[in-house]
Amino acid sequence: MDRKTPIITLLTDFGLKDEFVGVMKGAIASIATRAHVIDISHNITSHNIMQAALTLYSAFKYFPKGSTHVIVVDPGVGGKRKIICLKAAGHYFIAPDNGVLSLVIKHEKMEEIYAVTNEEYFLAPVSETFHGRDIFAPVSAHLSKGIDVSCLGERLRLEDLATLDLPVATFSSDGKLTGQIISIDHFGNLITNIDRNMFGQLAPKEGAKDLVIHIANRKIRGISQSYNTVSIGAPVAIFGSKNLLEISLNQSDAGAYFKARVGETVTVEMS
Amino acid sequence: MDRKTPIITLLTDFGLKDEFVGVMKGAIASIATRAHVIDISHNITSHNIMQAALTLYSAFKYFPKGSTHVIVVDPGVGGKRKIICLKAAGHYFIAPDNGVLSLVIKHEKMEEIYAVTNEEYFLAPVSETFHGRDIFAPVSAHLSKGIDVSCLGERLRLEDLATLDLPVATFSSDGKLTGQIISIDHFGNLITNIDRNMFGQLAPKEGAKDLVIHIANRKIRGISQSYNTVSIGAPVAIFGSKNLLEISLNQSDAGAYFKARVGETVTVEMS
Amino acid sequence: MDRKTPIITLLTDFGLKDEFVGVMKGAIASIATRAHVIDISHNITSHNIMQAALTLYSAFKYFPKGSTHVIVVDPGVGGKRKIICLKAAGHYFIAPDNGVLSLVIKHEKMEEIYAVTNEEYFLAPVSETFHGRDIFAPVSAHLSKGIDVSCLGERLRLEDLATLDLPVATFSSDGKLTGQIISIDHFGNLITNIDRNMFGQLAPKEGAKDLVIHIANRKIRGISQSYNTVSIGAPVAIFGSKNLLEISLNQSDAGAYFKARVGETVTVEMS
Repeated sequence: MDRKTPIITLLTDFGLKDEFVGVMKGAIASIATRAHVIDISHNITSHNIMQAALTLYSAFKYFPKGSTHVIVVDPGVGGKRKIICLKAAGHYFIAPDNGVLSLVIKHEKMEEIYAVTNEEYFLAPVSETFHGRDIFAPVSAHLSKGIDVSCLGERLRLEDLATLDLPVATFSSDGKLTGQIISIDHFGNLITNIDRNMFGQLAPKEGAKDLVIHIANRKIRGISQSYNTVSIGAPVAIFGSKNLLEISLNQSDAGAYFKARVGETVTVEMS
Repeated sequence: MDRKTPIITLLTDFGLKDEFVGVMKGAIASIATRAHVIDISHNITSHNIMQAALTLYSAFKYFPKGSTHVIVVDPGVGGKRKIICLKAAGHYFIAPDNGVLSLVIKHEKMEEIYAVTNEEYFLAPVSETFHGRDIFAPVSAHLSKGIDVSCLGERLRLEDLATLDLPVATFSSDGKLTGQIISIDHFGNLITNIDRNMFGQLAPKEGAKDLVIHIANRKIRGISQSYNTVSIGAPVAIFGSKNLLEISLNQSDAGAYFKARVGETVTVEMS
Repeated sequence: MDRKTPIITLLTDFGLKDEFVGVMKGAIASIATRAHVIDISHNITSHNIMQAALTLYSAFKYFPKGSTHVIVVDPGVGGKRKIICLKAAGHYFIAPDNGVLSLVIKHEKMEEIYAVTNEEYFLAPVSETFHGRDIFAPVSAHLSKGIDVSCLGERLRLEDLATLDLPVATFSSDGKLTGQIISIDHFGNLITNIDRNMFGQLAPKEGAKDLVIHIANRKIRGISQSYNTVSIGAPVAIFGSKNLLEISLNQSDAGAYFKARVGETVTVEMS
């Protein structure tokens, strides 16, 4: 990363109606005039830590190493939950210790873990309802200016951190692969937790026609390489841009079509 | 503020569907290539001057002095209303003269007030429906590059400016404190116009348990220090990040729970 | 344009819930640290190429020459449609070859047209569902750093490009001017495809009172210069900021009032 334009990303459930996001950016700009702040999303469903964890994990690796990722999906604000700063895979993460970093913790190489307690880097006074403004923003700004993460507070151990129970796809004894819908995107694509590796164990030759995906009492045959291998409005199973199995409609909304919800089961079997 | 990266903030009711906000940023970038434009919000309810005034006042002070704040909530666009540029508290404000700067005018030290009439700083031709693009954006860009505010037009007097009648909390003769809900945020928190100072006159020791807040025919006892002093989904009264009394639910939506609307009464009394 | 802060604009139908837009910005920042990325809109209706074409055409000319405009409204992603890079009117445009550049192609001077096929400028591997991240973003970043557009792929001819059939206002034999509503903005203003030139042929003196606009079985008499020439909530016909005839309500929502839809007929005649 170019040290002259350090990157700070923001991921929150603040929405875009109130001044909250702008105020965080003001607090950052007041400290780090050259920081380049990029929004990942502010439309995480209120208090939905799992959704934020998945969104972060799909996003962070496309930013330059050295970026600071600030996640404020923080139902426990003002309470006893810690605020933590991780360095992992060359990136910095500042987040409440509520599991929102679970996927980073699970899959990436941890380099440093600190509690964020040093009030020298906070705005004063600190409100009990908007740590995004009073703690997360100024701490990220100072970090982007090059302070060492060890200045933020005491060192923590990996096993001290809160993590979520993430749903995992599994093989059943009869050889079926059962996963769940873990998110539904803006287009209505249904993203599952079945990744290419697991899938490869079931169907070594991806795209094998003799394979059936079961969802919402319907069947989809085979895996497609792109949406438009089926007619407009028809269902298609595809490995999407996250390398996860997705159920889509070509140019239409699979979520509405299947009346699908996060958590629903998706099963794959050889026919 | 770093003169090399002057800050311009935008606060409008333009929404994020059309090209309006992007076009304003294009117009700014065409004049002030180094300006750092930060969105405060573009989702002010259409034509809601009061909401914009409150949002601005909660936000501007978190930006560096020298920032230029552009407010385009402007139902009178193309009509006789003036466009004004204030300098107050070290910040610049460009807005229609419709009361949207009422809180800045009421609470901050005025330094300069000018009408914005000098067409030299406008795009040409000026449309009668999109002054955001043709006047506000280019004027803010020129201001961020260092032109003197006195170049924009004639000097105005404070008493010439339009101001809103802002609802104010009051004490009744029986010692009750009566305020109003002045806004409802994305999370459903109900923000009142009861500030810490007024509250302190009623209940010198904040958090006193022997105090009752009445809202929508319900009662909340005492003031909490943070949301999670009550169970999830339960109501809580708290001084929020604006130093105003807020009614919230822990991790849920007080607006929906109380079926609350802006303007509704909130009463506080010792029990 | 200041070569030190090259501008890249983004126009997509990605919405603001998922990480898609943030990820594109991350991919750009990883290559072009100094690029200044500006959102035109991410709330184009899913797959609505016409709406994107109109939005782009209303926006691009307000950015400095040399800007790179990235349009990802791309229902054919992963299929056979080409990705193209145009230089026109001093601006660069990177878009799927699906007609989204129709208005640029129709009205602006073409300078260069290339297919975007050189994988050297793509992320690897390229997913079949998110070319915004894997192709559009990195290509725009490289272009903003000064690579020549001819490096992107083979030269194309103008007649090879896909274009939309855009609805055009026409005169009937009895002298009426018949157009269509082509978009409805955030405020509910109804934008038609009747421009000042056509209008001038019908009513040489704009604003002529003896002129009637027919919409949704109602009549509006005369053209106004600004919204507030009528009372609040009343209909008004006006040439808006795009130099197109618009039907509005003063401070209210014409779309809701007229129950109007894109494609509906608007007729103008001398009374």
